[in-house]
Amino acid sequence: MRGAVLYGPRDLRFEERDAPKIIRPTDAIIRVSATCVCGSDLWPYRGINPISEPTPMGHEYCGIVEEVGSAVTSIRPGQFVIGSFFASDNTCPHCHVGYQTSCQRAEFISTAQAPLLRVPLADGTLVPTPDVPSGDMIPSLLALSDVMGTGWFAATAANVKPGSTVVVVGDGAVGLLGVLSAKQMGAERIIAMSRHGSRQKLAREFGAADIVTERGDEGVARIRELTNGIGADSVLECVGTQESMMQAIRSTRPGGSVGYVGVPHGVQIDGEKLFFAHVHLHGGPAPVRRFLPELIDLVWKRKIHPGKVFDLTLPLDQVAEGYRAMDERRAIKALLRP
Amino acid sequence: MRGAVLYGPRDLRFEERDAPKIIRPTDAIIRVSATCVCGSDLWPYRGINPISEPTPMGHEYCGIVEEVGSAVTSIRPGQFVIGSFFASDNTCPHCHVGYQTSCQRAEFISTAQAPLLRVPLADGTLVPTPDVPSGDMIPSLLALSDVMGTGWFAATAANVKPGSTVVVVGDGAVGLLGVLSAKQMGAERIIAMSRHGSRQKLAREFGAADIVTERGDEGVARIRELTNGIGADSVLECVGTQESMMQAIRSTRPGGSVGYVGVPHGVQIDGEKLFFAHVHLHGGPAPVRRFLPELIDLVWKRKIHPGKVFDLTLPLDQVAEGYRAMDERRAIKALLRP
Repeated sequence: MRGAVLYGPRDLRFEERDAPKIIRPTDAIIRVSATCVCGSDLWPYRGINPISEPTPMGHEYCGIVEEVGSAVTSIRPGQFVIGSFFASDNTCPHCHVGYQTSCQRAEFISTAQAPLLRVPLADGTLVPTPDVPSGDMIPSLLALSDVMGTGWFAATAANVKPGSTVVVVGDGAVGLLGVLSAKQMGAERIIAMSRHGSRQKLAREFGAADIVTERGDEGVARIRELTNGIGADSVLECVGTQESMMQAIRSTRPGGSVGYVGVPHGVQIDGEKLFFAHVHLHGGPAPVRRFLPELIDLVWKRKIHPGKVFDLTLPLDQVAEGYRAMDERRAIKALLRP
Repeated sequence: MRGAVLYGPRDLRFEERDAPKIIRPTDAIIRVSATCVCGSDLWPYRGINPISEPTPMGHEYCGIVEEVGSAVTSIRPGQFVIGSFFASDNTCPHCHVGYQTSCQRAEFISTAQAPLLRVPLADGTLVPTPDVPSGDMIPSLLALSDVMGTGWFAATAANVKPGSTVVVVGDGAVGLLGVLSAKQMGAERIIAMSRHGSRQKLAREFGAADIVTERGDEGVARIRELTNGIGADSVLECVGTQESMMQAIRSTRPGGSVGYVGVPHGVQIDGEKLFFAHVHLHGGPAPVRRFLPELIDLVWKRKIHPGKVFDLTLPLDQVAEGYRAMDERRAIKALLRP
């Protein structure tokens, strides 16, 4: 089979790789129905996270179970399944409290931009849909594998409640789905920080009432102005830079909450500033597995449509163009069909 | 009257000062029954927070209302009252959600090591006890003004619940009262980190089951060992140094919570480490006012005895000895009687 392999900065190749096989009895092999390019794939693609050797790529996936190992009991061939970007046993003490991305046996899934994928810990990692879905639903189900679950975790970590005033920092796919998540959780008012027309449009469609284009001190001042000088109850930090983190902390009211899901790159938080900001701070790699049953249900009943973030669909063999389009911000998120 | 004034590093004088007067109609004047030296007073005393001019000291107090301004409606002369170290109106949006130390009209109380004290925003700041207390109860009531309220906030911010496993970093008076708070909130197991015999003893008396003397990597390893490799549900950070903050974060299980109340000095939190630690982080200047009614009730009914942290009692004119004893760690906390 052929799959995506990153060789170095902006050198993404679609090339022959060995087809995956069952290695451990807890594995499953999935025939991938759809995969996609993640904002976090752009860190190594841009050379910001350097790689030392050719690296297969991809950690978002859904598809049909092709084969399972001898110890797999709850997943069967023929099922349509979705899994998180981290495999987890779903039984260890960390999984037990809903932090499956910190599972004691966690394994990062990193070869999903390919037609076939080995998923470790299949019973713990994969969640089947009620039936094989119709094709039009696949983008929204695929989104649950990471980007939607991550936006949902950002809103959960930021303690969004009915009636909350919410700010979303970052207009990538995660930020946009953070808007959708906050809306679904009953936020009364959602303010999206974005400078891009097409993203602003989708943010409004997902439930944002206000758009703030300012950044830095001006961005903070604008949020204060929009919140009667109080700050927001909940702020979702969906970027991962020093500027975005400070934007989030400074936009939050005392006692409010920042949920941060952008993988921090070079972020240092000043302890004294955080102390006097009086905010709650929680984040990390989203424990998507925790949310899969609920989110599958919402998509299955067509109550949410997170697949709208895919504004570019390509055959998998054009995966390199998917990376380029996202790198150049021509696309919000690229879906790939094997 | 005479009160405590800091002139420079380790130069604390007890000298003549003007007696306070009502300045604004929302003020009250308190005749101080007892005051004390705070761990945070040691930062300027040691020269770590430099001062630029002679500075009156003291922010913990309880006593009898002597006089109130014309706009004060709920506080009357003759009442025994306790207030927080921050005056607050208790009505602004931040007070409304329980963050009175971020009150939009907050004023730091900084002249309490004296026989008479002006308290701004008296209606919002002061809470009367049911009656004038007996003398033996005064140390425990005084403790509510800051140190006990701060330990209580640390446990609240660290989300201590019945059944929780709790670690307390720091064996100063705040840390010890963090132990008491966690016990009162139903913690199943409390691990105190301490290297000092007398403090270990009080930690055990307040409810600690285990004492850890190791620090740094060894301290983290010991906590892991004591918690079956999982980490604690809740960790109270009651120091404010880089080492103590990282000790706290690294001792917490994924999904667990760090409550931090030690004023951070030079603390920088690495965003990426915090991200993968998966902890909740919350802290700041304790909104003691939020807790005063509940804590007064617990002391009044003699259910808690936070005054035990005062292991040195001096007449106010020996306040300099109180600072010295705490600086040299000969005393946990010094109570001063005008």
